[in-house]
Amino acid sequence: MRQSKLFSRTLKEAPKDEVSVNAQLLARGGFISKLMAGVHTFLPLGFRVREKVIGIIREEMNALGASELLMPALHPRAAWDATGRWESMKSVMYQFRDLQGKEYGLGPTHEEIVAAIGTHIIFSYADLPISTYQIQTKFRSEARAKSGLMRGREFSMKDLYSFHADEQSLAEFYEVVKHAYLKVFKRMELTAFVTEASGGDFSKEHSHEFMVETSAGEDETVLCRLCGYAENKEISKLKSGATCPKCPGGVVEHVATSEVGNIFKLGTRFSEPLNLRYRDAAGALHPVIMASYGIGVDRLVGTIVEVHHDDRGIVWPRSVAPAAAHLVVLGEDEKVRAYAEKVYEALTKKGMEVLFDDRHEMSAGEKFTDADLIGIPARLVVSEKTLAHNKVEVKERKNGKPELVALKDLPALLGSNRE
Amino acid sequence: MRQSKLFSRTLKEAPKDEVSVNAQLLARGGFISKLMAGVHTFLPLGFRVREKVIGIIREEMNALGASELLMPALHPRAAWDATGRWESMKSVMYQFRDLQGKEYGLGPTHEEIVAAIGTHIIFSYADLPISTYQIQTKFRSEARAKSGLMRGREFSMKDLYSFHADEQSLAEFYEVVKHAYLKVFKRMELTAFVTEASGGDFSKEHSHEFMVETSAGEDETVLCRLCGYAENKEISKLKSGATCPKCPGGVVEHVATSEVGNIFKLGTRFSEPLNLRYRDAAGALHPVIMASYGIGVDRLVGTIVEVHHDDRGIVWPRSVAPAAAHLVVLGEDEKVRAYAEKVYEALTKKGMEVLFDDRHEMSAGEKFTDADLIGIPARLVVSEKTLAHNKVEVKERKNGKPELVALKDLPALLGSNRE
Repeated sequence: MRQSKLFSRTLKEAPKDEVSVNAQLLARGGFISKLMAGVHTFLPLGFRVREKVIGIIREEMNALGASELLMPALHPRAAWDATGRWESMKSVMYQFRDLQGKEYGLGPTHEEIVAAIGTHIIFSYADLPISTYQIQTKFRSEARAKSGLMRGREFSMKDLYSFHADEQSLAEFYEVVKHAYLKVFKRMELTAFVTEASGGDFSKEHSHEFMVETSAGEDETVLCRLCGYAENKEISKLKSGATCPKCPGGVVEHVATSEVGNIFKLGTRFSEPLNLRYRDAAGALHPVIMASYGIGVDRLVGTIVEVHHDDRGIVWPRSVAPAAAHLVVLGEDEKVRAYAEKVYEALTKKGMEVLFDDRHEMSAGEKFTDADLIGIPARLVVSEKTLAHNKVEVKERKNGKPELVALKDLPALLGSNRE
Repeated sequence: MRQSKLFSRTLKEAPKDEVSVNAQLLARGGFISKLMAGVHTFLPLGFRVREKVIGIIREEMNALGASELLMPALHPRAAWDATGRWESMKSVMYQFRDLQGKEYGLGPTHEEIVAAIGTHIIFSYADLPISTYQIQTKFRSEARAKSGLMRGREFSMKDLYSFHADEQSLAEFYEVVKHAYLKVFKRMELTAFVTEASGGDFSKEHSHEFMVETSAGEDETVLCRLCGYAENKEISKLKSGATCPKCPGGVVEHVATSEVGNIFKLGTRFSEPLNLRYRDAAGALHPVIMASYGIGVDRLVGTIVEVHHDDRGIVWPRSVAPAAAHLVVLGEDEKVRAYAEKVYEALTKKGMEVLFDDRHEMSAGEKFTDADLIGIPARLVVSEKTLAHNKVEVKERKNGKPELVALKDLPALLGSNRE
């Protein structure tokens, strides 16, 4: 990845209308470009971070035995009329007619669609439990979209749906997913609290939210740091400073959080109106018991930046960084340039992801400022000074001191860093 | 991938409203599920084929030095007013208002959006040429969507955009892309003709289409099989049986084709209204010269099925097959089942993609019919008969005869098949 050919550019100043740290840094670093409030382009570096986030989610969903599919965003009105949500979700769903008068909605979620598909797949108790997920673009009519990637009108989500014959099967899988979610967030170096929450529009049954503490978060969580008990502010009766009901000596505080995931026991809320039923061993018909599980992909990218940055820019966790190393060549000297090319080729050939700052006519200061802003874990510098030692200067973005390393030792060094 | 846990099911009969071979086979094989005309879900097997198609396209686009980004589908009216296309594309663009009265369009293409982003990236001749692409969901208001995946209201496309300082740079890159496109289609075992075509809505300048011969195609191409000269019917003056102007002795015929790709020289059609300009070495400002290049991802999946099937089902080219092998276990005998599990584990551990038909209480005939319909290149059978020889029966979907192979020889055999 040559920086000179990347369809992206860093900015000296954040756009004036961006207030949140994630929106400012992602825009300045050339990760995203705003088309309108709540609607962004992922520029190449941002696209790569998003792909890494998706890759982690995908691995953990596949590990659950869920198969990946892709449902459409454009839904006919009839699909939503079946559950009454065409009317009840009017304020958040983009709904419109085509020139022939046909009515469509853009899906903010897919319970109706997946349940309808399920009627062609699930017939017997032997077909259950089963689960499926997608990573897909959703739309939500937001009167006041804001905060960069945190609350979008168009955004990517991972949504998983599970189907069960009984409550026990549901309860077991629900717990497994809860742990898979915590693993997903941990792999991105995020600490998520599981909060008890109300089901919202979706469900009158039990639901949980996954919250990450960040000042840009739009939610408020009642948290006991001693035992980890967390509750959504909306349903909590505990004021800041109150005793935690789950732990003697614990005191709760109210903290700003970003909701990066949620899980809902749906029961038969969707299977009944959509006639998603199975036959038990005796041949009797029952509605399938469902649950849905969401992770906000774009919001995760924003949340990671909120948590992992310093005053110079983003500090990407290795697992989601757009590249493993940022190779920076200084000056215009032909020998130095040739050596940098050699380093780039050698590392790329080893399968390493390298962003190569091969741009001309820029000072070391300008290039270093950009590298810090972009926040790739390891910075490699090739200059007249390093070439004199026949070495490359390596510096960790996080807290490293520069050290000179021979080219032959780089792959092992950077490879071990990746773990 | 265990078939018993796949969110998908084969159908005995194709849905009555599907007339094209690709729609019938993809629906019967459980690759896609129709939500409404022109809007489909990719079920897990279809999703995997789509991912393979995308993987090939991505490799060839990256080889061009183009960087991948992801632009949104939801566009504000202002973005399209800039070029006058809000009005001129009214009949094919979904346009609507939210509850606050704000006007949106769902993007059927992204020239306006990418040119506007380019104004923050391209400033000088030194920034050119540059190119970027995305694989993204597009929307197109079709009064009569039809033919399965061939003409969708919602569909995935790869769209590449290139930016140049002069016509020569554009012409060179345009030729390179043309060859990359032919390579993409060849890797999917499709023979594409490059036809000269009119620019349509996009361009009054030169453009080319990539056509694959198939009876489900909606286009008509005037073709000389002797020299390969091809021309879009819309601009051709040649009747069937006429002498080919490019080759002595050649006679043209009219054939039904499916358009799988198109490339357009856009010139300054978009850069001028959007103020996308660069400074030359002397400091003078010029509009950037642009081109755009599309490949229909979903349509490719449909076209591959049109070309690669027989009377028993789909015959996937190896490069895009949902798995390398389809392992089928017959009967309920515990030892047979255990051996099949062992084969599945061994192959999966080697990194091979295996669809494992572990379903119970199905006859050999039912399982073989499904395997032929699904069309994975190699079928592996484990049964009492094969276990008696301590072997697996291997049969190529295309034209193979069954042969017994020891488990230890399978990876090499299937691996070499994959080339």
